[in-house]
Amino acid sequence: MTYSTKAAPSLRDAILRSGLRDDMTISFHHHLREGDRVLNAVLGECSAAGLKNLTVNASAIMGCHRPILDFVRDGTVGSIECNFMHAQVGQAISRGILEREVIFRSHGGRPAAMDRGESHIDVAFIAASAADTAGNCNGKEGKAAFGSIGYAMPDAAHARHVIVVTDQLFEYPLIDASISEESVDTVVVIDSIGDPERIMSGTTRVTRDPIGLLIAEQAAKAISASGLLRDGFTFQTGAGGTSLAVAQYLGELMRAKGITGRFASGGITGLLVQLLREGLFEVLLDVQCFDREAVQSIAEDGRHGEISATRYASPAAKSAVVDQLDVVILGATEIDTDFNVNVHTDSNGVIMGGSGGHSDTAAGAKLSIIVAPLMRARLPLIVDRVGTISTPGEDIDLLVTQYGLACHPGRAELARKLKGAGLPVVPIQDLKAKAESITGVPVRSVHKGRPVARVISRDGALLDTIAMIDN
Amino acid sequence: MTYSTKAAPSLRDAILRSGLRDDMTISFHHHLREGDRVLNAVLGECSAAGLKNLTVNASAIMGCHRPILDFVRDGTVGSIECNFMHAQVGQAISRGILEREVIFRSHGGRPAAMDRGESHIDVAFIAASAADTAGNCNGKEGKAAFGSIGYAMPDAAHARHVIVVTDQLFEYPLIDASISEESVDTVVVIDSIGDPERIMSGTTRVTRDPIGLLIAEQAAKAISASGLLRDGFTFQTGAGGTSLAVAQYLGELMRAKGITGRFASGGITGLLVQLLREGLFEVLLDVQCFDREAVQSIAEDGRHGEISATRYASPAAKSAVVDQLDVVILGATEIDTDFNVNVHTDSNGVIMGGSGGHSDTAAGAKLSIIVAPLMRARLPLIVDRVGTISTPGEDIDLLVTQYGLACHPGRAELARKLKGAGLPVVPIQDLKAKAESITGVPVRSVHKGRPVARVISRDGALLDTIAMIDN
Repeated sequence: MTYSTKAAPSLRDAILRSGLRDDMTISFHHHLREGDRVLNAVLGECSAAGLKNLTVNASAIMGCHRPILDFVRDGTVGSIECNFMHAQVGQAISRGILEREVIFRSHGGRPAAMDRGESHIDVAFIAASAADTAGNCNGKEGKAAFGSIGYAMPDAAHARHVIVVTDQLFEYPLIDASISEESVDTVVVIDSIGDPERIMSGTTRVTRDPIGLLIAEQAAKAISASGLLRDGFTFQTGAGGTSLAVAQYLGELMRAKGITGRFASGGITGLLVQLLREGLFEVLLDVQCFDREAVQSIAEDGRHGEISATRYASPAAKSAVVDQLDVVILGATEIDTDFNVNVHTDSNGVIMGGSGGHSDTAAGAKLSIIVAPLMRARLPLIVDRVGTISTPGEDIDLLVTQYGLACHPGRAELARKLKGAGLPVVPIQDLKAKAESITGVPVRSVHKGRPVARVISRDGALLDTIAMIDN
Repeated sequence: MTYSTKAAPSLRDAILRSGLRDDMTISFHHHLREGDRVLNAVLGECSAAGLKNLTVNASAIMGCHRPILDFVRDGTVGSIECNFMHAQVGQAISRGILEREVIFRSHGGRPAAMDRGESHIDVAFIAASAADTAGNCNGKEGKAAFGSIGYAMPDAAHARHVIVVTDQLFEYPLIDASISEESVDTVVVIDSIGDPERIMSGTTRVTRDPIGLLIAEQAAKAISASGLLRDGFTFQTGAGGTSLAVAQYLGELMRAKGITGRFASGGITGLLVQLLREGLFEVLLDVQCFDREAVQSIAEDGRHGEISATRYASPAAKSAVVDQLDVVILGATEIDTDFNVNVHTDSNGVIMGGSGGHSDTAAGAKLSIIVAPLMRARLPLIVDRVGTISTPGEDIDLLVTQYGLACHPGRAELARKLKGAGLPVVPIQDLKAKAESITGVPVRSVHKGRPVARVISRDGALLDTIAMIDN
């Protein structure tokens, strides 16, 4: 097949020629985040074509994807698999809109499931801001540039049929082929793959909240006290406001101490780009760009490298970047006294998130730190048992709150170092009691409904189930 | 598995921990060409470890690999598969040193056979001039830099066990990971992977022979007359002296006419780098660097891109670069009146070469041109039937010799254009007669011995067999 035969005149035509039929699995990636227009457009065409009972396997279901609920209602979509689900979709799932259970994986577990043959993709839809007529493509060039296309690389490698969806064609050959023509069956040009201005969603700015800043400062001090903050330091932080503030404080510490880190990895923000440019980190390993500054940097700076989801975090890879991490900063909606963390469901048991790279980095990093306020809206962070286990407690080393730090009971040496540095380390039970002394002990709703979702560990085992909510 | 466990203290240790056993297949790539030290070193260790009846699957067996014959004799090596075999090894194969038939594939057919499951690699040995401790590696950096590592990429993707052999470790992470840690099991550091000075073997300089220059000039005129030499022109040439001279003449034509080519592909020489820098081509797509200038360019110039053997030429890929070629310039040891070309055996039927990318580019390009002198050492180029079919005649469009040009009979339109441009186009039989009028009709030895090699087409079919020579 030569490239001239790969061009489809329309998305509908591309779908028809893929051989997509009822009950098959289609896949998507979420690098365009809240700006993505491809998932909805594809499902619209599938619905119009009368396709039924498709499985949607997406690296994340964002808020902008809430039209997927219409396609659940009309029978186009029968199953959903993802690593993250926004509350705007999660609420309907939690109320039982989908008969079959949603399968939650992690960013590393998703490609691992493909590699192990546990997850099969019939047709992958790959949104690319730049593509040539043979399907060589990337996210770094073009009007809707979004940077790294790392989450889509496993889809390109594994799907039976690969459709590149772009809004800007480049002359063959696109040299920087993050995904190569060798894997691509069809190229289709649409008006817009999405709005790159909406890549930056609310979670990717440094917090201004004094409590968040206090927590971040304590976390940075804990990293320093752990002994890991030395030349060659490797680091990852989530995109939450407090997590980003940790990076900011850490940068100050590194600057003051003259320490150069080796790499920062994962989802990359402008803040990390600044630390790279300043020389505080030598390398960025980027599976997803969180803002325009990161998008620009990955296109221009040879020290800012793109990595696939497999290289980033897959436990089925022969090694992955997460295994080289010294420290990862992570969030939590709940944490229990065994240090299990919930990032899937809210305090009412309603789906509002997912692991993303949470469990992957927690498993890989030498020091996994949860940063979170002890109470949110008068609800305590620490519970007897999390509503959903997203990351097992054995992979979490340290909790940092505004009222003190708690080490996992198995990390006595870490606790000793932190105490030695004057940090207020206390048993997690004490922090729990502290919160409850302020908020009272909340009455938690326990849902007994049928399971609406399964949380699959990165190794492919069942980690937890999420029950339908009763109200 | 984390990176720290990937380091093997020695090549022997790396082999032992790979689980390599008798009768298994090991693979190699030949980017270090006549300077490669890895294949011999590995076979030496295999022999010392008492391993028997291994299959060696190498992208090419070079002259420097002649110690492989010792390992055939001592039973370490029981089979050889390759895309090219130097006469220094080929002569012994043709005399029957190996009981089992050598399997010849093409540069595109080799990865295609892996993709189709027809070729299984147990342990791949990947020589890399730069690697980190997790196995991220490339050929662009380090003291033995050789440029593109394209032929090894399919091995990394398909082999059960992948060993990266390097002589220069870099700090994790090597950003420009042509081959990623996700595929690599073991990293071993040896004193020297090879001598990069010997990458440039004798075939990669523009000819100074007047007959070669005449042929090249005629070929360039034919390209111009074909109508394909226009803006966006795409081109590949072999590394033979006459083939390179075509590129030089073509550059002059493009300069004079103000034509900008889109890309040149395949094995890249300094001559093509100069054309890139001058702006006569916009892009180089490089599966193998033939000299130091190409090695330097691929490391520094963003317009000079590295491609895998799969993306270059695999018929099992969803598309490949060779399919986008306008013109390819190729050599021949023999061509017959049906335009079948032999690049495997000499006039005595002795193995001295192989397809490399010959059959792949001939199949893909719009215009496939053979450039060759009508006689070599008083032996005519054109025969009734080639000793070995390397590339089927149907994929060859034009033969250019110093005594005239011959078009494939099916290319009447091409012949018309060339004649219109005043080029001396004659039937191939006339060229054959012309040669025989000078040299006489040679008595060709026909060997009736058992087959010593099979030539497999890029699509996986048997194209020809090569018989053992009798003398």
